[in-house]
Amino acid sequence: MDERYYVLWGEQSKSFKMTEKLKNSILGRLGIQEKEDIWDGFISPKVVSSGLNIPSIDKCISRSNISFDTGERFYHSIGKGCADFARMLDGKDIRIVDAVIYPNEDELNCLMKNADKDTGIIPYGGGTTVTEGLSPHNAKKYFISVDLKKINSININAQDMVVNSGAGVKGPDLERELNKAGFTLGHFPESFLHSTVGGWIATNAAGQESNRYGKMRDIVVSIKMISPKGQITDKIVPNQSSYFRPMDIAVGSEGAFGIITEATLKIRNMPRKLFYQSFIFRNFEDGVKALKELFDGSDYPMVARLSDPTETELSFKGIEENMKTKLFMNYLKMRGSLQGGSLLIVVNENGKIKHLPDSISSGRSPAKIWREGRYDRPYMYNSLLKMGILADTIETSAPWSRIIPIYNEVRKSFYSEINSLGINGMIMCHISHEYSIGSALYFTYLFYANDNREEKLNSMRNAILSSIIDNGGAISHHHGIGRSFKPFLSKYEGFNYELIKSIKRTLDPDDIMNPGLIDL
Amino acid sequence: MDERYYVLWGEQSKSFKMTEKLKNSILGRLGIQEKEDIWDGFISPKVVSSGLNIPSIDKCISRSNISFDTGERFYHSIGKGCADFARMLDGKDIRIVDAVIYPNEDELNCLMKNADKDTGIIPYGGGTTVTEGLSPHNAKKYFISVDLKKINSININAQDMVVNSGAGVKGPDLERELNKAGFTLGHFPESFLHSTVGGWIATNAAGQESNRYGKMRDIVVSIKMISPKGQITDKIVPNQSSYFRPMDIAVGSEGAFGIITEATLKIRNMPRKLFYQSFIFRNFEDGVKALKELFDGSDYPMVARLSDPTETELSFKGIEENMKTKLFMNYLKMRGSLQGGSLLIVVNENGKIKHLPDSISSGRSPAKIWREGRYDRPYMYNSLLKMGILADTIETSAPWSRIIPIYNEVRKSFYSEINSLGINGMIMCHISHEYSIGSALYFTYLFYANDNREEKLNSMRNAILSSIIDNGGAISHHHGIGRSFKPFLSKYEGFNYELIKSIKRTLDPDDIMNPGLIDL
Repeated sequence: MDERYYVLWGEQSKSFKMTEKLKNSILGRLGIQEKEDIWDGFISPKVVSSGLNIPSIDKCISRSNISFDTGERFYHSIGKGCADFARMLDGKDIRIVDAVIYPNEDELNCLMKNADKDTGIIPYGGGTTVTEGLSPHNAKKYFISVDLKKINSININAQDMVVNSGAGVKGPDLERELNKAGFTLGHFPESFLHSTVGGWIATNAAGQESNRYGKMRDIVVSIKMISPKGQITDKIVPNQSSYFRPMDIAVGSEGAFGIITEATLKIRNMPRKLFYQSFIFRNFEDGVKALKELFDGSDYPMVARLSDPTETELSFKGIEENMKTKLFMNYLKMRGSLQGGSLLIVVNENGKIKHLPDSISSGRSPAKIWREGRYDRPYMYNSLLKMGILADTIETSAPWSRIIPIYNEVRKSFYSEINSLGINGMIMCHISHEYSIGSALYFTYLFYANDNREEKLNSMRNAILSSIIDNGGAISHHHGIGRSFKPFLSKYEGFNYELIKSIKRTLDPDDIMNPGLIDL
Repeated sequence: MDERYYVLWGEQSKSFKMTEKLKNSILGRLGIQEKEDIWDGFISPKVVSSGLNIPSIDKCISRSNISFDTGERFYHSIGKGCADFARMLDGKDIRIVDAVIYPNEDELNCLMKNADKDTGIIPYGGGTTVTEGLSPHNAKKYFISVDLKKINSININAQDMVVNSGAGVKGPDLERELNKAGFTLGHFPESFLHSTVGGWIATNAAGQESNRYGKMRDIVVSIKMISPKGQITDKIVPNQSSYFRPMDIAVGSEGAFGIITEATLKIRNMPRKLFYQSFIFRNFEDGVKALKELFDGSDYPMVARLSDPTETELSFKGIEENMKTKLFMNYLKMRGSLQGGSLLIVVNENGKIKHLPDSISSGRSPAKIWREGRYDRPYMYNSLLKMGILADTIETSAPWSRIIPIYNEVRKSFYSEINSLGINGMIMCHISHEYSIGSALYFTYLFYANDNREEKLNSMRNAILSSIIDNGGAISHHHGIGRSFKPFLSKYEGFNYELIKSIKRTLDPDDIMNPGLIDL
């Protein structure tokens, strides 16, 4: 009997309480009647290996730190993105790594020195990639997944307000140690409970409070990265005038230059108090205008999350009904805010913000509810996946003047694409990372298809990302691009791509690290 | 009769009013009695050219945009740093560029495509380098100085809070246009009146208000850089997750990768009001401690400038005496703050800061006086230079825990070095750019020598920078390293240097751009 593996997000025992209202609204929008679960989240994959057997790990890695177990190899070869799930629902073969290792740093150094061009090395942190950052794709290589969980030291330096952390340290473990000492890293991506320091850096991740604490490019003070050609590391200094620094190229490096083994990160005093607020705008455009004003100055909130009307409506439908929420909804209805209204939730450290133009205040609750469930959204996707409904996310950043054009064009191209695919879908959007010059845009879209899901997904992704790039958006704001969006890289970068290639050639000329991610 | 050229800082007509007290204090510390001017700031240099004549510019640059005038070539080949002045006072030969061009962008593109390996190209902005960033050093090349003053467009985009500026635009011209529209760039280096956008980026410059507005690495949104192998440019987006961006490698590139021709920069609303304060600490250490506390949180001042006791004493001696200042000095004397006290001046946008531990308040005047004379200090050096006294500056950044060790070690190695050179000198220091994790340290030292000034300067620089690097400081915080400190680069960077070289090889394999700055 084949082994069956649970592949959905997070803990198997945990589920998302989807209200009937929310479920019905989603099903309605997807043109589906009542839908039974068609999947339990387990699969018995048809796994494929390279068939090669290269002993390079024997020389460096102690036997107890190597695993050839099919399950471990499988789990280390898939992520938590829509492409992974589409492929699994389609029943396709899954190429998996040939071995998983759990090295200490000495072992890793040895491996990196001895790995030859027939080897492919894929760094593994928390396995939460949504851009296929873990999938081996080159048939001619022997693939090793390097799980960094044993590289997990944490050293707090309160004098310099930094922490040195092993790349394999997970969010909650790092934050717990920091909180004990009165500090916080302030980095809370949705994947926080599972993702690691190394993964955050490799994707230039941005947490939900990035307005206050910065994205990884702002938080990192120094990295250590072991590449096939040698180790690079930064001096721990606040600023350097001449040339660029290793961390400048390691942040966002997607595991393609080397393995980030440790990092020194800025820490901050824990906030004393948080203030919660929310506002409703008549439409998304008014909300975007207000956000821009809010971020013109130096005193802006640590979280400002503006949902478009679709996401706003689903958010309210997702709240458990009781007397209080009913009164609240009636109030909003009375003010005419539930029809096409856009919800902005605000969390702030330094006091409340005053009235925002063209908005009505909708109290603290929406912000508190959001924060309490800040890591739960992927569990909602689990519920949908069980019904065969796929959820994908694509995000970008753009100057303020491009936000509404991108928003409109993405929606248009999405609906035109599903139309020509002959399937039903829905798309929604929020803004949750702001800058003086613009903001991020985060699109979530759901669709239902009976077959060829991966192919359909790819054509939707293609339509959406093309719209984004053609209208002046970034190839990604904080997810990285992994293998999923790698085909866009060359066109997006133009001649700049030569710079990325030149670093790759210097650190990894044999394309051992995440092979195929960068063209040589 | 040979032409004579004025080579000191800034405008010839402008001078620094040095009080007798200040002058006597400096002379006393240098062990000099009353000193007459020995120099008027003019020189008739023994100039040296390559002797080559390569017609590559004829093809691309219109005749009216080329100059072979000796004066123009001379001015484009020297900076305003101590090494330049030491060499001139020593009466040494000065290697100068063979031609100066003032191209428009089309001409520049043509030149960069056609320049061959016998050509050296040195970008010229405001000519204010203090690290020999302009000096041709390779005897076998024909050197062209590319003066960017005709690349000077300014386009404000208020919607996206950015300005697009030609690289040749000078500080006051850019700020004037921005102020008219209610904005500021907030970048005010001491060289502000003369330096250019391109130069700021090439050295990752930091202005006096960088705590609020950021250094160039924070201000730049996108650059355009023309290299011998092609043009790189950034998408104008607030953040990008995947890989590094052209601006990441262009900031601090010292003219060695290509010519930065334009940049998009963040702009800010003009501050409504500024608050001025000053404090005196018993010693430098107490001041450093207070600074660290101040920058732990998110609400820190836009300027916080802490002078060590020597700089504090000279600052007070430089204030013109009147009834009011006499009373103030008496007050400070009474409080015991003039003996070894460290002055902190603070300028803030959001109100005053409360009492700082272990300090006494010394009112608004020191901060206002500093700000009014913020661009004047180099004129004091002019006055000293006329007496034959040389002033050099070396700056770094370091984590808080390394600030006092570096401060002490630099002073020790400086005094030990001048001792063994048998000359008199003095050194002082201030901190003026702070971070949550540390700060910059800015050393100014003065010395007097009758001969071999350049050689003596180099041995002092060597002693100081070695002390800095050995004790955990950055190779430079915001001056760049130019040719002056290039010899330290290889050791400082270690294997990281390979990354810098790989970018150089990709963009400029024939070492046309500022040849010799990066080893290939």
